[in-house]
Amino acid sequence: MSRTKTAFLFDLDGTLIDSVYQHVLAWKTSLDAEGIDIPVWSIHRKIGMSGGLFTNILLRETGLDATPERLDRLRKNHAAAYKELSGSVRPLPGARELLDYLTEQGNPWGIATSGRMETAGHNLAALGVDPAKVPVVTRDQVKYAKPDPDLFLTAAERLGVDIRDSLVLGDSIWDMIAAKRARGLGVGLLSGGYGEEELSKAGAFRVYADPADLLLHIDEVAARA
Amino acid sequence: MSRTKTAFLFDLDGTLIDSVYQHVLAWKTSLDAEGIDIPVWSIHRKIGMSGGLFTNILLRETGLDATPERLDRLRKNHAAAYKELSGSVRPLPGARELLDYLTEQGNPWGIATSGRMETAGHNLAALGVDPAKVPVVTRDQVKYAKPDPDLFLTAAERLGVDIRDSLVLGDSIWDMIAAKRARGLGVGLLSGGYGEEELSKAGAFRVYADPADLLLHIDEVAARA
Repeated sequence: MSRTKTAFLFDLDGTLIDSVYQHVLAWKTSLDAEGIDIPVWSIHRKIGMSGGLFTNILLRETGLDATPERLDRLRKNHAAAYKELSGSVRPLPGARELLDYLTEQGNPWGIATSGRMETAGHNLAALGVDPAKVPVVTRDQVKYAKPDPDLFLTAAERLGVDIRDSLVLGDSIWDMIAAKRARGLGVGLLSGGYGEEELSKAGAFRVYADPADLLLHIDEVAARA
Repeated sequence: MSRTKTAFLFDLDGTLIDSVYQHVLAWKTSLDAEGIDIPVWSIHRKIGMSGGLFTNILLRETGLDATPERLDRLRKNHAAAYKELSGSVRPLPGARELLDYLTEQGNPWGIATSGRMETAGHNLAALGVDPAKVPVVTRDQVKYAKPDPDLFLTAAERLGVDIRDSLVLGDSIWDMIAAKRARGLGVGLLSGGYGEEELSKAGAFRVYADPADLLLHIDEVAARA
């Protein structure tokens, strides 16, 4: 039996990069500036979906109009506040090693993030990923971000792989929902701060602590060379 | 049958005050300054236990000596970084209303926090709680903080109530473990960013979203006047 090498489609923030909590507090700052008072944990639970969808939902919950000007201010203030906090952002334990391992083994891999290249660029550099060599799909390139399946479907397409032979690796329930909708197999990581059961309930068929833990148990989800 | 009014023993950060994520990033800053590289989500999972215990565990995990000087620097740098981030800290939805309701109903209530009065003071003011009138037990007043039971036991003693007639309300698994060890009944709140199952597994017999949600469902856990 000939076996196709399993492809790995990664989310970025909270999955390969330790940046979720900084994004959460940056959104808190941005929402505060608009007079939108949302508890921080509930921002955390929405992180990872499309920024536009995220702000739309929050505005709907608070009864404010989602005018283009307001959405634009929210996005810009978030980016500015994130920049302030991003000094402490680093790759997650094992992230670089996991990507190197996949490259050596010949497993195709790519990155699909709800963020824009404007914020993702710095993180890719910290990871040592060159978007000229590795498929990186950002919010800028698809019409609908997570929990829609488009980001992961586009990443699979770029790699020339069938999403049904692919793993979708993410830290948020939006990744797992997008994985299901794309017919990929969702693998959850706790490194974005969601609980194990939240990820399992959202469709993760396995959950690991972080990229290092996944690398340690990689035989559970993908065949060796 | 005469019924004792159920007493409510509250944790502070993440339970009445929306301050957990700011504490998490403040610890990240403080640990970074000591060259201790810990992913943010794993700091989040340790928040709520005694600061001394927390730093001891992290130092043990990273193989560094827990010298008094290092522990003192970590504590001071955390307090300074938290002060920088604390501008956005506010009471959680329903916190003030819940405390007012308990006062009106004649249910005894108090606060027991692993934090020190130095950082708790500002939060109590924001909540409108006067420590001269309401029992507030801080880290300064007990030998062992959470997950040891001493903080909640001392709060019950100050109120003159039996801990076995008390609810222990908290957002972290350390609150729930301390509640079990003290023989109080643990009620979990999601507002500190832990998952529902994490709190249930740690012993919470009921879990609500935040103080507003608990107030809405208070008949489930305490008898009316």
